Amino acid sequence: MYKRVHNFSAGPAVLPEEVLLEIQKDLVDYKGHGLSVMEMSHRSKVYQGIIDDATASVKRILGLGDDYEVLFLQGGASTQFFTIPLNFCPDNQVANYVNTGAWATKALKEAAKIGKKMHVAASSEDKEFTYIPKELELSENPAYLHITTNNTIRGTEYKKDPDAGDVPLIADMSSDIMSRPVDVKKYALIYAGAQKNIGPAGTTLVILRKDMIDKINPGLPTMVDYRTHIAKGSMFNTPPTFAIYVVGLVLKWIESFGSLADMEKHNIKKASYIYDILDNSDFYRGTVVKEDRSLMNIPFRLPSEDLEKKFIAETAEAGMQNLKGHRSVGGCRASLYNALPLKSVEKLAQFMIDFEKNNK
Amino acid sequence: MYKRVHNFSAGPAVLPEEVLLEIQKDLVDYKGHGLSVMEMSHRSKVYQGIIDDATASVKRILGLGDDYEVLFLQGGASTQFFTIPLNFCPDNQVANYVNTGAWATKALKEAAKIGKKMHVAASSEDKEFTYIPKELELSENPAYLHITTNNTIRGTEYKKDPDAGDVPLIADMSSDIMSRPVDVKKYALIYAGAQKNIGPAGTTLVILRKDMIDKINPGLPTMVDYRTHIAKGSMFNTPPTFAIYVVGLVLKWIESFGSLADMEKHNIKKASYIYDILDNSDFYRGTVVKEDRSLMNIPFRLPSEDLEKKFIAETAEAGMQNLKGHRSVGGCRASLYNALPLKSVEKLAQFMIDFEKNNK
Repeated sequence: MYKRVHNFSAGPAVLPEEVLLEIQKDLVDYKGHGLSVMEMSHRSKVYQGIIDDATASVKRILGLGDDYEVLFLQGGASTQFFTIPLNFCPDNQVANYVNTGAWATKALKEAAKIGKKMHVAASSEDKEFTYIPKELELSENPAYLHITTNNTIRGTEYKKDPDAGDVPLIADMSSDIMSRPVDVKKYALIYAGAQKNIGPAGTTLVILRKDMIDKINPGLPTMVDYRTHIAKGSMFNTPPTFAIYVVGLVLKWIESFGSLADMEKHNIKKASYIYDILDNSDFYRGTVVKEDRSLMNIPFRLPSEDLEKKFIAETAEAGMQNLKGHRSVGGCRASLYNALPLKSVEKLAQFMIDFEKNNK
Repeated sequence: MYKRVHNFSAGPAVLPEEVLLEIQKDLVDYKGHGLSVMEMSHRSKVYQGIIDDATASVKRILGLGDDYEVLFLQGGASTQFFTIPLNFCPDNQVANYVNTGAWATKALKEAAKIGKKMHVAASSEDKEFTYIPKELELSENPAYLHITTNNTIRGTEYKKDPDAGDVPLIADMSSDIMSRPVDVKKYALIYAGAQKNIGPAGTTLVILRKDMIDKINPGLPTMVDYRTHIAKGSMFNTPPTFAIYVVGLVLKWIESFGSLADMEKHNIKKASYIYDILDNSDFYRGTVVKEDRSLMNIPFRLPSEDLEKKFIAETAEAGMQNLKGHRSVGGCRASLYNALPLKSVEKLAQFMIDFEKNNK
């Protein structure tokens, strides 16, 4: 027998229990092949099948046509932050960013740090990143527009894919990839660290529209030139084989769940448990504008920091982990990624109701 | 019950069976904490303990003092190939390399590709990389000297740490790290992809002498500036948490085995089974100079390519996998990393003797 806590971590995050059980079953001897996935040559037929399956799942789930490349890279979103301007911002153009919080800020600062011309096309910094700015003011000669579709720390999320016209739209979808349908055709590049909605830490999904390949700047280090990985099917060097295998299993689990519209419905249902409490309470307080609030990360405050401490301690005792807000903003935060079971949200909601009664 | 093949893969490679069994046991519920290591926040106390333990093991095994930093990064040795000249070769100095084969060639080409002055201080290309060149001719004003201590494809290995005098010595030890004692004090930087001797693919061990920190070039992208990762204990962003956990378990297994002198003795014993056959046969033929041959990767040829094909097919049928030589050189290759059990080598040796009898 094993124990499972209710895991509200912002990432690395909860994985589907059935996926973990399958990994466990196959760990020492993968499907009778006599070795662990961790021990397989990435050049073996068995492993090639594993990465091909994962790639095919990405394409099916997102409805990608042959005009998109799917890559599994390393280094997290933070590596994409400098790789994107390095590849796609020539010296005579300007990298455009929407600043919606800490991670968006890191992305735009990195473009400036490596010497690119950078422009903030919209920002919600004026109100502590509590909303998604809708109006864009692009620079002259923009190389691309970069957005962060879900803001893990602040709990805001794009509900509508923005329209950048002819300007290539690039999105960090690390914290809401495959949690809801998106109009992928609007995007020139989508990237996502796997460790929130689609797997463990250690690989980054990159989806690149093929017309972008010709725009790649010359003279880049081999490992941060997207062409390297496209040419070799993500296997120019040894890829993070086990992390990709686990992502593949999570993707199969997503497919077995249904379409992304089904997943969104389920995620709306889960989030409603918590938002309904916030909306009908003068004890709990949501921190972001209603129309922009995230289905994935729900930050909230209690009447005092002492009560917040008490709340976090008592939830932990009751088997609900990682409800502390990000250290940069304080308060509480519940992350409800795809794999978080409904029963975890039900338990938290009931706990919140009881805690309010007992502490009002 | 489970099946285990004899896995002679050059990497990703065989892992200790007891490590795999421990991972399997703890996979869904790590030591009663109620979640998988894959689901843990990297900011949690439990995970901090895991990475601290792995770091402490590296220091104990290699006998590192407080003058060295230990990092767990992403992107493989190939990412280090450009990161090293980016950090440690200023424009007025010259990056020096010893060229001992395919990976060394990639490393030195990458330094040139990113616009650094590069110099080949020694090379064994004249004899198809079948030996380790002993004489060095450094350039004027060298920034560092880079070597590859073991050459996976060709099967050569440094038996003695080279003397670079005052010039910082940098080594790619991906394929022989912790397989034998090295005089670490001679090295300014050591790096190794984990997937051969110390774990699964997905993390790269970097060991950096602290006096190198002040030499780091200014203005680098955040993720490829070593200072970023030193300042944050390899957790500037989400690290490859599970890969580091597995490395930690393999390191504990290495420690339980004994000292690196014990490990070398064991590896010499294993390699002798195969080298003794090569030395006493006119059927099998070793491909490298005797004094430089590797304990980790043993390439060998048979009298004809047809016999090589037959040999590889029959070993596979007998449960011995991955004995095909690298596609760039052909022939056969047995990789005998730390975790390869003695019984696998015994089986291969007996098979080689029988195959020679039957096919001579």
